[in-house]
Amino acid sequence: MLFQVRMDVKIPHDLPAEQVAEVLAAEKAYSQELQRQGSWRHIWRIAGQYSNISIFDVADNAELHALLSGLPLFKFMHIEVTALLRHPSAIRENDS
Amino acid sequence: MLFQVRMDVKIPHDLPAEQVAEVLAAEKAYSQELQRQGSWRHIWRIAGQYSNISIFDVADNAELHALLSGLPLFKFMHIEVTALLRHPSAIRENDS
Amino acid sequence: MLFQVRMDVKIPHDLPAEQVAEVLAAEKAYSQELQRQGSWRHIWRIAGQYSNISIFDVADNAELHALLSGLPLFKFMHIEVTALLRHPSAIRENDS
Amino acid sequence: MLFQVRMDVKIPHDLPAEQVAEVLAAEKAYSQELQRQGSWRHIWRIAGQYSNISIFDVADNAELHALLSGLPLFKFMHIEVTALLRHPSAIRENDS
Amino acid sequence: MLFQVRMDVKIPHDLPAEQVAEVLAAEKAYSQELQRQGSWRHIWRIAGQYSNISIFDVADNAELHALLSGLPLFKFMHIEVTALLRHPSAIRENDS
Amino acid sequence: MLFQVRMDVKIPHDLPAEQVAEVLAAEKAYSQELQRQGSWRHIWRIAGQYSNISIFDVADNAELHALLSGLPLFKFMHIEVTALLRHPSAIRENDS
Amino acid sequence: MLFQVRMDVKIPHDLPAEQVAEVLAAEKAYSQELQRQGSWRHIWRIAGQYSNISIFDVADNAELHALLSGLPLFKFMHIEVTALLRHPSAIRENDS
Amino acid sequence: MLFQVRMDVKIPHDLPAEQVAEVLAAEKAYSQELQRQGSWRHIWRIAGQYSNISIFDVADNAELHALLSGLPLFKFMHIEVTALLRHPSAIRENDS
Amino acid sequence: MLFQVRMDVKIPHDLPAEQVAEVLAAEKAYSQELQRQGSWRHIWRIAGQYSNISIFDVADNAELHALLSGLPLFKFMHIEVTALLRHPSAIRENDS
Amino acid sequence: MLFQVRMDVKIPHDLPAEQVAEVLAAEKAYSQELQRQGSWRHIWRIAGQYSNISIFDVADNAELHALLSGLPLFKFMHIEVTALLRHPSAIRENDS
Repeated sequence: MLFQVRMDVKIPHDLPAEQVAEVLAAEKAYSQELQRQGSWRHIWRIAGQYSNISIFDVADNAELHALLSGLPLFKFMHIEVTALLRHPSAIRENDS
Repeated sequence: MLFQVRMDVKIPHDLPAEQVAEVLAAEKAYSQELQRQGSWRHIWRIAGQYSNISIFDVADNAELHALLSGLPLFKFMHIEVTALLRHPSAIRENDS
Repeated sequence: MLFQVRMDVKIPHDLPAEQVAEVLAAEKAYSQELQRQGSWRHIWRIAGQYSNISIFDVADNAELHALLSGLPLFKFMHIEVTALLRHPSAIRENDS
Repeated sequence: MLFQVRMDVKIPHDLPAEQVAEVLAAEKAYSQELQRQGSWRHIWRIAGQYSNISIFDVADNAELHALLSGLPLFKFMHIEVTALLRHPSAIRENDS
Repeated sequence: MLFQVRMDVKIPHDLPAEQVAEVLAAEKAYSQELQRQGSWRHIWRIAGQYSNISIFDVADNAELHALLSGLPLFKFMHIEVTALLRHPSAIRENDS
Repeated sequence: MLFQVRMDVKIPHDLPAEQVAEVLAAEKAYSQELQRQGSWRHIWRIAGQYSNISIFDVADNAELHALLSGLPLFKFMHIEVTALLRHPSAIRENDS
Repeated sequence: MLFQVRMDVKIPHDLPAEQVAEVLAAEKAYSQELQRQGSWRHIWRIAGQYSNISIFDVADNAELHALLSGLPLFKFMHIEVTALLRHPSAIRENDS
Repeated sequence: MLFQVRMDVKIPHDLPAEQVAEVLAAEKAYSQELQRQGSWRHIWRIAGQYSNISIFDVADNAELHALLSGLPLFKFMHIEVTALLRHPSAIRENDS
Repeated sequence: MLFQVRMDVKIPHDLPAEQVAEVLAAEKAYSQELQRQGSWRHIWRIAGQYSNISIFDVADNAELHALLSGLPLFKFMHIEVTALLRHPSAIRENDS
Repeated sequence: MLFQVRMDVKIPHDLPAEQVAEVLAAEKAYSQELQRQGSWRHIWRIAGQYSNISIFDVADNAELHALLSGLPLFKFMHIEVTALLRHPSAIRENDS
């Protein structure tokens, strides 16, 4: 089951640089692990913003929230979730 | 080059039924042709709304606009375009 | 799997009275059938508005959209969907 | 009498960790006590957000405010209240 | 129990003049009857707008909705409801 | 002359507790003095929010601003003012 | 007593041309009469919009509303009122 | 003196086709004449929308409004004006 | 050439009191000097807010920005500019 | 390929003055270098705001993001990107 997720990141400017580096490294590892497992199906950067648009493929809402609330950057993000489904005009078989 | 496109459809309630059927059939054929050609890479329905979220893969802004303004439903849609690019944490090779 | 759905109804003031009566009767029957089947778990009126807040219990996003887009009033509604899950502090067993 | 309540939590990132743990424990105990007493009838997490949607069953507006302003997290929350009532199409007897 | 209610009126410009006069007369009679009964405690015009801010005193949300949805102008209004209660600094005895 | 005034209070979470207690006590005394004098005619709490809706009765805009800008909490508030007048359907003699 | 008033005009495109000409002529005469009397102190066009920003000088809110609701274009306008007063840094004697 | 102007076009769907063609032709001629004269310095289409972003070079606000309110499509447009000036980091001589 | 300018002031609550007093005194002197010179034609306080609405009379956009960005409070303000011109119904000779 | 980019700058008021001076000097040098190379085609100040409207000419979305995220002020800016293309009424050859 697919969801579009938009994440806007806002790191406080007075967070110590090491702490920032640490959380960013953890975020990248976490994201790539979920991509390898298949639940984080797409991730794109939005041009000009510290934001991404992603597509998640999960069993249900609870799994989606578990993945998102586990993000190392979760407390520095604003997240919006949109529930998706197969469009009646879609022709790709593997896209829902 | 990728763009996210959100389309919200609002057909006037007093449009004659045949005219609606005609434009919807044309829209479906148009969308599927662009999907087959590869420029309309993804299309998903938004749950509960007469809307879709799509990913377009085009050569440039001009091609994107030519495709969107050619939509049979164009005059009954509100469209929002978001410019995307490869995310530094992405692992899929074919996703940008 | 639970979703909150808010429906705001806006019927054009020049729709003939019989047509309005017909669609409202169909809407009520449709809603009550889904309530009996268990997928439309709660429905409440919002005080002062021609709107409701509902809780749907469905298998997935696709089932949710099938139910909502089948509403007789669908083309006269604005619908917002919010994906829900069990809250870690919840104590009721049958509420997720 | 029912109200839908949406709570969005925003804890300042520089609040000491023990203070956060303390207020979260107090919040959970407080919420569960009200759920046991019946005034906090439903609580659901919103997917992807540090937010909940709840249904309160109270005698009047004053009781609702007393319960909400007593929340240990009250000063770190944005709260929106919507007054609800039985919907004319509802079929459940115990849902208003 | 008190509620603030804001009503913004928008009558379609092509509604026949007699129909407008009729609904306005009915609205005035309805409002004054509720004021005499005590449930519509205050009504003020907003300067420069076809709008009012009112205070209703009702037994519960259901009574509030019954009164508001019975307004002759209901289908030409946008209504916002705000639940009120006695303020801890209030000194008037008869104002809650 | 009447004005509706909405005040939303936001006290910085790092303000020392004694300073908060002091300003709140001053605010309450100030409000009650104006209520006794008749210029602050009504004050109600909004359910679930650190906010109030008030009705002021003043000679002119300048007096209204003098009263509001003198609020001990003024610098921690967002205030919205709406100019009111007697509604043509009002029946109470003393309500304008 | 001064108020800033912003008026945004939206005339339905299917209003007959004579009816438009008539209401515009009436509007101009009405505006100029109030300017001559001194209650409509300033009126400026907003560049690029069918809108104006005006300053009214009236005895009270009721007079302001009487003037505005009497505008021939009133039912085709959206109006926003802002209550003004003398600024403590102002040096002009005749500007409040 | 430069202004950014954004124009969003919304032609009523029931306007007769000849009338639409006529106004569009007039609009194009008008725009190209102003471009040739130099007051309409740039015009770009916004991808996916029936909108443009333009840069006007005019003597003053009055000239800007005269040009914009003379647009054949003026009554079918929403227009936003932003006053611009030379940026302190700009290096082009002919761009202010 | 006239512009309406709205300034909303937000001074950080932890700015030392002497620094606040200093910047406010500088602001007042600066404003009064521009009023004497004629470029800051009107300034009014908005009732209930730490905000003003002003009318500037300047040679062009660049002069307007030079005056506004020189405000001692500039970095603590949110400013919105609206380009104005003589209204076709205006009767005052000296108001454009 | 052209993009309109709006940048709103918000520097925290407690950033040390030398740090501010340093980042502003770096920003100016960076901007002027991109202007010389041709990718930052236009930059204008918005009157009354610490903001600019710019036109970028880049090969694709990825280049645009690389340029914008490299801005020395990037973490103190809110940026909005709008994809542009040649307008069908444009007459300048070198403006797309």
